[in-house]
Amino acid sequence: MPCGTAGTVKAVPQDILEELGAQIILGNTYHLYLRPGHEIVRNLGGLHRFMSWERALLTDSGGFQVFSLSGLRKVTEQGVHFRSHLDGTSHLFTPERSIEIQIALGADIIMAFDECTEHPAERSRVRESMEMTLRWARRSKVYFESHKNEVPWAEKWNSEFPNTEQNTEIQLKPGPGTGQPGPTQALFGIVQGGMHADLRRESAERTVEMGFAGYAIGGLSVGEPRAQTLEMIAAALEVLPLDRPRYVMGVGYPDEIVQYAAMGVDMMDCVLPTRAARHGLLFTSEGRLNIKNLRFAQDLGPLDPQCGCKVCARYSRAYLRHLFVSREPLAGALNTLHNLRFYLDTMRAVRHAISLGDFSGTLLGRVSMT
Amino acid sequence: MPCGTAGTVKAVPQDILEELGAQIILGNTYHLYLRPGHEIVRNLGGLHRFMSWERALLTDSGGFQVFSLSGLRKVTEQGVHFRSHLDGTSHLFTPERSIEIQIALGADIIMAFDECTEHPAERSRVRESMEMTLRWARRSKVYFESHKNEVPWAEKWNSEFPNTEQNTEIQLKPGPGTGQPGPTQALFGIVQGGMHADLRRESAERTVEMGFAGYAIGGLSVGEPRAQTLEMIAAALEVLPLDRPRYVMGVGYPDEIVQYAAMGVDMMDCVLPTRAARHGLLFTSEGRLNIKNLRFAQDLGPLDPQCGCKVCARYSRAYLRHLFVSREPLAGALNTLHNLRFYLDTMRAVRHAISLGDFSGTLLGRVSMT
Repeated sequence: MPCGTAGTVKAVPQDILEELGAQIILGNTYHLYLRPGHEIVRNLGGLHRFMSWERALLTDSGGFQVFSLSGLRKVTEQGVHFRSHLDGTSHLFTPERSIEIQIALGADIIMAFDECTEHPAERSRVRESMEMTLRWARRSKVYFESHKNEVPWAEKWNSEFPNTEQNTEIQLKPGPGTGQPGPTQALFGIVQGGMHADLRRESAERTVEMGFAGYAIGGLSVGEPRAQTLEMIAAALEVLPLDRPRYVMGVGYPDEIVQYAAMGVDMMDCVLPTRAARHGLLFTSEGRLNIKNLRFAQDLGPLDPQCGCKVCARYSRAYLRHLFVSREPLAGALNTLHNLRFYLDTMRAVRHAISLGDFSGTLLGRVSMT
Repeated sequence: MPCGTAGTVKAVPQDILEELGAQIILGNTYHLYLRPGHEIVRNLGGLHRFMSWERALLTDSGGFQVFSLSGLRKVTEQGVHFRSHLDGTSHLFTPERSIEIQIALGADIIMAFDECTEHPAERSRVRESMEMTLRWARRSKVYFESHKNEVPWAEKWNSEFPNTEQNTEIQLKPGPGTGQPGPTQALFGIVQGGMHADLRRESAERTVEMGFAGYAIGGLSVGEPRAQTLEMIAAALEVLPLDRPRYVMGVGYPDEIVQYAAMGVDMMDCVLPTRAARHGLLFTSEGRLNIKNLRFAQDLGPLDPQCGCKVCARYSRAYLRHLFVSREPLAGALNTLHNLRFYLDTMRAVRHAISLGDFSGTLLGRVSMT
């Protein structure tokens, strides 16, 4: 899932995202709450309509962004007090507030409010944080159940799609995992538990007991070695039900996402393809390359000879290097388009391999150099 | 002609420029000489190939950019000594050097090296500057005539298009005004003469005597009142031959370009549509608007209800305002796309009116609010 932080996948117009085959993109609750404000987005019909994106959307809970971006953060049982990184104003996110905001934004999938445990952390601290995330998950769910019909497109939905059987768009709007089409969002729970496999399992078990439309594994890719990430994901997956989407948050490199998909992960998001692109780091079938490197200054070849994207079809490495070195806005747009294509192609290959029942050597080999 | 300063119309990919119907775009010799360097562009086959743009290109002489961007400028009869705005290195542009660089870049139309007289200036200073521009025009032409076959695509041209009759692409490559298709560029002369109609006429006469493929009117839109711009253009047009392209450099607002076209001007370029777009100033059929204005925060309407561009077809003013206020890179891309469409639509309407033999009320009314 490409990241569309402030209601836009940075530098990429929505029609290009459609062409690239993005099925779902993320919005960040923290950013959209601060600007333009969730009330405005609600008044305008929700995030889909606001950003003109008819495909699926997911919003995070805002917890992680508060953790990583805002100033003067203070966490209590009630929630998180923080100052806006934009203007220093004081705000409070609670589980109830996060869900209220996410209902106003109206994404198809919304996330329970959690605490992303810092790393490294003592076991006692990890347990304490995990227990609070579980209490916050319950509060998130309670609030959601009693307000889920307040989603901005509920009325429009009911009037426009009275007979859901007749409309193909139905696939995008209903709550995934509910088995029922309808005008509510899908609320996902989040597994925490730091770098302790037993706590991960316990967190997963107790989150599943509460019952969510899908389950995310959070608090990973925070600086731990890859082997530990794998161990934590494996521990959670042992417990998470197969008939619900399983989502690892904030990962990863192309080889990682293939590996996690092979383990049974259904969804992933990461700023890496888009952020790296804006910094000139490009993913190709021949490995990563940094486009600002002098050796590309007179290279008339495409970024990636194996890639079918618009950028590789038309522009040379020499031109892309020139755009990047000259800080031209087109550099970010073209680099991002290519990296997203590489990621989405990677996941298309994964889905194809799954559909063929073959998820092994060739596919993993494809991204082994990246 | 949209401005593609450093080999890119800022924030707009080439396929979008093609969709918008841009027939010709500008490159700036000063920028491309400094980065990536004209030798690199020549080695890569010229600017068309470097930026993947098969339609027409025009490069300016570099004189105006040196005047407006570089530090420590010193003008002598020989040429202009200047320091790069990028790294402070010392450089010298002479008429010969400017043409040498422009031949290396390989645009379809290139410009004689001129001095853009400062405004205001005493009549004696204007004459002196105009006389030097005339001497520089002759030096430009002499250099061009003896080096015009060194254009980077000459060899490719001769091998790929031996029979020019059979190839429609021929319309783009030959020197305009020569009456003959072939692998050389078209060199345009530039009329100066400050704000003195008699000097403008004299400059035009003596430039035409030298004989160029087309003629530009430079040194306008430098702070003088509109009536004076019109008077200077009219004076030059009295003299410039009707059978050669007549180009007013660096103009203007939508109503200006219509007015100048009505006077008989064939070509214009300006950074206004692209630069204004990046600053949130948008041109519409209902007048100019500044997209950052708070009144657009909840405006679900399109930027311009009369516009058929991709931006007006898909996005609301509220969303465009959000992108701009949030400094999202997509803001520049979408705003520029719209403004270019408005300008190119304006010129399409002008051409249509000319083809109908009706160039009056309705058309001028269309842009009177802008």
